[in-house]
Amino acid sequence: MTTHQQVLSITTRGRGTQEITDAVAGVVRDSGRSTGLCHVFVQHTSCSLMITENADPDVRRDLETVMARLAPDGDPAWRHDLEGPDDMAAHVRTVLTDTSVTIPVGGGRLLLGTWQGIYLWEHRTHGATRSVVVTVLG
Amino acid sequence: MTTHQQVLSITTRGRGTQEITDAVAGVVRDSGRSTGLCHVFVQHTSCSLMITENADPDVRRDLETVMARLAPDGDPAWRHDLEGPDDMAAHVRTVLTDTSVTIPVGGGRLLLGTWQGIYLWEHRTHGATRSVVVTVLG
Amino acid sequence: MTTHQQVLSITTRGRGTQEITDAVAGVVRDSGRSTGLCHVFVQHTSCSLMITENADPDVRRDLETVMARLAPDGDPAWRHDLEGPDDMAAHVRTVLTDTSVTIPVGGGRLLLGTWQGIYLWEHRTHGATRSVVVTVLG
Repeated sequence: MTTHQQVLSITTRGRGTQEITDAVAGVVRDSGRSTGLCHVFVQHTSCSLMITENADPDVRRDLETVMARLAPDGDPAWRHDLEGPDDMAAHVRTVLTDTSVTIPVGGGRLLLGTWQGIYLWEHRTHGATRSVVVTVLG
Repeated sequence: MTTHQQVLSITTRGRGTQEITDAVAGVVRDSGRSTGLCHVFVQHTSCSLMITENADPDVRRDLETVMARLAPDGDPAWRHDLEGPDDMAAHVRTVLTDTSVTIPVGGGRLLLGTWQGIYLWEHRTHGATRSVVVTVLG
Repeated sequence: MTTHQQVLSITTRGRGTQEITDAVAGVVRDSGRSTGLCHVFVQHTSCSLMITENADPDVRRDLETVMARLAPDGDPAWRHDLEGPDDMAAHVRTVLTDTSVTIPVGGGRLLLGTWQGIYLWEHRTHGATRSVVVTVLG
């Protein structure tokens, strides 16, 4: 068993989700590993990763609604607002979701269920270039 | 180091938690690995995994109360309700908890704390057969 | 590839966060591994791990504010209160954050982003000695 590691650079267009399943699957293919684990990690504290339903885009729209309730932009309680009203909200959203996801690999591919997609979730209102480290062990 | 992988099929009886610690420990035993990691993954977007207190069942009842607040069934804000009032609530609960958990393995067994149990949390109101992929690296 | 495993014992001073990035980085250094994964796991159900911004302490103060809203001490809904008003709140906070975090290792070090720190988050109001299992595969 050895490690295959690759960094993906993903440009976001502001708050919202972006599917990265194909990009991650490509790294697994490149790795040539048959069985093991695929770990995906964002090197940031204001965007996150999520595995959720990949069929109806309303699911992700509703998830935005939930996050807007749990971590409102410009909440009067936030002390950390150096970079604007979405700054602290973005950190809270990241903590309530995931900085990394790990997916089993079998038969040379990601063992995702039929309705599972991997999403990069940008929590800042403006876009950014996000660094995603993919590590395959197998 | 090689990979040992096994799929568990768990039938749920509708919304609620079901302990799977023994089933996961059995896979670790079967693997014969002494030291490493055990990764547990659900291939679904409307049930999740959780590590929590295994002694007082009221803990899991209170966690249901929390989730019913954070992700109410039939919330008027949900746009995604194809499969009923619990459909979107189940996706939100899954995102707020975990699609996978990873536990260290040492001395040939799961290194869980005394009060930690691994639970499959069904978020739909009806039961389903859930596929859980367990991968042991070590 | 082999496994390097070490247990850290961390004494907390009651509710709040404590940075453990240096301690975890030390285990990676001791392991001598160049590329792989570092898994960090707390063997408890009333404290958790979190990766968040390491620059402005107000971020962690605001995260406390969020958790106090989502999981209030002494909430009249809690049935589990054997160990006081913060008992169930601590379990909820743990479930909403993480029992483990996994960080990629490359070039012999943790591949954290510039602003990412690893924190142990004590959720009980009194301090405790917490056991953290660090496993490096690579």
